[in-house]
Amino acid sequence: MAIISPGPLKLPPKRPDVRDALLQAASELIIERDTLEVALTDVAQRASVNSALIQYYFGNKDGFLLALLNRDIGDAVRRMRILLVSEATATDKLTAHLSGIARAYHRAPYLNRLLRMISNAADEDAFEELVHKLIDPMCSFYRDVIAQGVAAGDLREVDPVLLYFTVVGACDQLFSNRRLFNRLAAEGRTTDAALGVFTDYLVTLVFEGIRLQP
Amino acid sequence: MAIISPGPLKLPPKRPDVRDALLQAASELIIERDTLEVALTDVAQRASVNSALIQYYFGNKDGFLLALLNRDIGDAVRRMRILLVSEATATDKLTAHLSGIARAYHRAPYLNRLLRMISNAADEDAFEELVHKLIDPMCSFYRDVIAQGVAAGDLREVDPVLLYFTVVGACDQLFSNRRLFNRLAAEGRTTDAALGVFTDYLVTLVFEGIRLQP
Repeated sequence: MAIISPGPLKLPPKRPDVRDALLQAASELIIERDTLEVALTDVAQRASVNSALIQYYFGNKDGFLLALLNRDIGDAVRRMRILLVSEATATDKLTAHLSGIARAYHRAPYLNRLLRMISNAADEDAFEELVHKLIDPMCSFYRDVIAQGVAAGDLREVDPVLLYFTVVGACDQLFSNRRLFNRLAAEGRTTDAALGVFTDYLVTLVFEGIRLQP
Repeated sequence: MAIISPGPLKLPPKRPDVRDALLQAASELIIERDTLEVALTDVAQRASVNSALIQYYFGNKDGFLLALLNRDIGDAVRRMRILLVSEATATDKLTAHLSGIARAYHRAPYLNRLLRMISNAADEDAFEELVHKLIDPMCSFYRDVIAQGVAAGDLREVDPVLLYFTVVGACDQLFSNRRLFNRLAAEGRTTDAALGVFTDYLVTLVFEGIRLQP
C-alpha cells in the first residue's frame, strides 16, 4: 500500500511561521526608521505576506504591538523565572539578569517606547494584565533576589522597584537614542561592541558603585 | 509740577514676561496630558495670551520646543558649570549634581522625550548646536569630575558617557512613566516624596553599589 512509504515519513513542509515573520519585520522596520509609527502595510511587505494576515493573527494594530512587546520582553521574563528558582547566589542571578536585560534593549532599543505607548493607550483591565504579565515578574525577581542577597550577607537593603527603574532606564537611554549615542560614543564604537563594554560597566556600577574601596 | 511726584516713582507695571508664561504653560500642559502633542492654541490659552505671540517670540513650534528644552536643562547646565570650577571634592560635586538632575526630571519628566523629539527632527547643524550647548557640557562635567576623583584616589576609573547615560536614564525612567510609577510605587507615595527617596538611593547606588562591604 502506498500509504506506508519506504523511507522516512514525508510530511508537508512546516508552514512558515507567518506570525513570527511579521513580528520580526516590524522590529526591523521600527529600528531602521527609529520610530514606532510604522505602517502595517510596510510590515507585511517586508515579511512578504498579505497585510490581511496581520488582522487575522493579531486582530488589530494594538494587538500586533502588544504581541511584539510580549515577544521582546517575554524571553527575558521567562529566563528570569528560571534564574529565580535556580541554585545560584543572588550576585550570580543579578549578574546574569543584567547582561540579559542589556541584550534585550540592544536587540529591541524601542522597548521602553513601545511599553509606554501600549500602557498609555490601555484601559484599566488591559493595563493590569500588562503589569501582571510583564512588570510584576520583573519586580518580583528584584525583590526576591535582593532578599536572598541580604539574607546571605552579600547585598545591602535596596528598594527593588528603584533598582529596576535604574537598570531599565540605563539600558533604554544607551540604546534608544542612536543619534546621540553615535555622537558621544568613542570613535567607531558600534552598538555591538558597546553592548559588552556597557554590560561590564553596568554590573560593576550596580554592585560596587564608583567609589574606590580602600 | 506734576511730573515730580511726592511719593516713590510710579513706574508702569512691569510687562509680564509673556515668554516665560508661555513656556510654563506648555510645561504644565505636557505634564498634565502626558504627551508632547500639545496644541499651541491651548498653550496660549493657558498663558492667557494671544497665540500669535508664540510665533512672535519663538518663530515656530520647533523654536518653541527648543526654548522649552533650554529652559528645563539650561538651569542644570549652568549649575554644573559653577560646580565644576568650585573648590568642592569630586564626591561633593557629583552628589550635588545627582540631586540637581533628579530635581530637573521631577519638575520636567518629559525632558528625555523632548530631547529625543528635537534631536531626531534637527538637521546636522541644529543637532550639533544642541549637543554643543546641552549635552557636551554635561559629558565634560562627568569627565572632569571623575578625573578629579580618580586623581584624588576617591573614585575608580569609569566611562563618563556611560555614567551620564545611566543617571539620565534612571531619572527619566522613574518620573516619565507616571502610570507605571503609580502602580508600582509604595501605596500613597507621591512623586514629591519619591524625589527625596530616589535621590538618596541614586547617590548611594552610584557611589557604593549594592554589594555589602565587609
